[in-house]
Amino acid sequence: MIERIAILGTGLLGTSVGLALRAAGFGGSIVGWNRGNDGAQTALKAGAIDSSAWDPLQAAVESQVVVLAVPIYATLDLMEKLARVLGPEHLVTDVGSTKGEITAAAGRLFNTPERAGFLPGHPMAGKERGGAALGDAELFRGAVWLFTDDASWNRSAQSAELVKGWRELVAAMGSKTLDLDPVRHDKLVAWVSHMPQFVSTAMSALLQDEVGEAPELKDVGGRALREMTRLGSSPYSMWRDIALTNTEAVEATLFALEQRLAHLRENLRTPELREEFERANKFRRE
Amino acid sequence: MIERIAILGTGLLGTSVGLALRAAGFGGSIVGWNRGNDGAQTALKAGAIDSSAWDPLQAAVESQVVVLAVPIYATLDLMEKLARVLGPEHLVTDVGSTKGEITAAAGRLFNTPERAGFLPGHPMAGKERGGAALGDAELFRGAVWLFTDDASWNRSAQSAELVKGWRELVAAMGSKTLDLDPVRHDKLVAWVSHMPQFVSTAMSALLQDEVGEAPELKDVGGRALREMTRLGSSPYSMWRDIALTNTEAVEATLFALEQRLAHLRENLRTPELREEFERANKFRRE
Repeated sequence: MIERIAILGTGLLGTSVGLALRAAGFGGSIVGWNRGNDGAQTALKAGAIDSSAWDPLQAAVESQVVVLAVPIYATLDLMEKLARVLGPEHLVTDVGSTKGEITAAAGRLFNTPERAGFLPGHPMAGKERGGAALGDAELFRGAVWLFTDDASWNRSAQSAELVKGWRELVAAMGSKTLDLDPVRHDKLVAWVSHMPQFVSTAMSALLQDEVGEAPELKDVGGRALREMTRLGSSPYSMWRDIALTNTEAVEATLFALEQRLAHLRENLRTPELREEFERANKFRRE
Repeated sequence: MIERIAILGTGLLGTSVGLALRAAGFGGSIVGWNRGNDGAQTALKAGAIDSSAWDPLQAAVESQVVVLAVPIYATLDLMEKLARVLGPEHLVTDVGSTKGEITAAAGRLFNTPERAGFLPGHPMAGKERGGAALGDAELFRGAVWLFTDDASWNRSAQSAELVKGWRELVAAMGSKTLDLDPVRHDKLVAWVSHMPQFVSTAMSALLQDEVGEAPELKDVGGRALREMTRLGSSPYSMWRDIALTNTEAVEATLFALEQRLAHLRENLRTPELREEFERANKFRRE
């Protein structure tokens, strides 16, 4: 039923969506668009898309499903533009890491019988470095793909059908889907995704100041250090928008962790340390 | 030249040392001892040792090199006992994660011409769970094996030769060796090993309180969450001794990280966030 897909933004996630759709047996057309001179050439060469478009709006108009795979503010900007040119025969979906502002814009600009549908989505998958060259058909296998759909939206019959079709394609890419309220989504991902990122960034920046000038000493750390600082490679360009659109929830998790670290630090010599280790063991066991 | 080795403590590290020695072509005898009823049976069955001893002191006396692979306070306790029964024809070495107290005890109890030699060692390798069953011949490959030897020690010629022989065996197990002053060692590993452990424990314990009751939500986090909390599985029994013997250095790193997290939290909406990401990127790039 879905035969024409446009992927706007062929970085790591957009390219991986194209490759995963092909690996899942999707036989329709996939057009890609990317900002910049090089356009979507890397995604095209990788076989993630069939053709590269110059104009994202035209590519969207000529497709049934439009996948937005750009940073959050770029997503919000494209949503404004797409709402003016698309109609009830279209569905737009996205892969943004925070869902409060995008879901609010989806309710304001889309999802009436006369307008295009919009399904806010968020695959819990990524890499610490971006770019089409790292695109991976297996990126979404075993991951959870979150949606913050709203039951009160009154979509056109056509876009409601496309929602069903897109959810089937997501499952075919190997992801489990889970529906959450957008406020709950943003709080939950602050705990399980954003806090780990900002902790890894803070730890890497601190270690750069402390041992960064002695490269041989970095080797000393081994696997644990490499894992705990892997996300230190993540680009500011992506995380800036997350910090700006989920500020309060992220602040709450970081403040809670600061307090927890102080508690542990003050109890290095007391039996309370055992309780913290046992709580941590329990988290990992379950 | 080294033909008889005793491994006292056949948990993860002791068993891995035996397996790695065999994989490196060591053809001499390896006797193992472990606390508890089961003794060193798992290590014996795995081929990490040739025989299991009832008495650690007798096993040590009958060997040339004695490898202590028990927690730090158990190491210090065995050092006291071994110093009374060993002589200049022996070398004792260890794998403990803090080196201040052990190196001080080595200077007090060993390393004169009439006494056994002691070479304080610390392979930067491990797993988040212990036990002989996880023993791994490849555990030390590519890792750094630190020593905090003291040039002012006046060892017997025999134990000095055994030091050379043990360093060659460590290289044969695939490790790079690095010599550090014990104070510098303890400060360095506080940054690159102990801080990552305590942060992972604090984060896991906090997440257990926040999302631990909803197991399906833990799946949401993906690879980043799994990596950042992997060390949350580490046992208190091992880390208690590290916390007690490197308290001040660990406190300093945790306090510095608390301040860094607060700084990042207060700058989620400012350009300073970019600078923290760039510093973190630099740590990972070099």
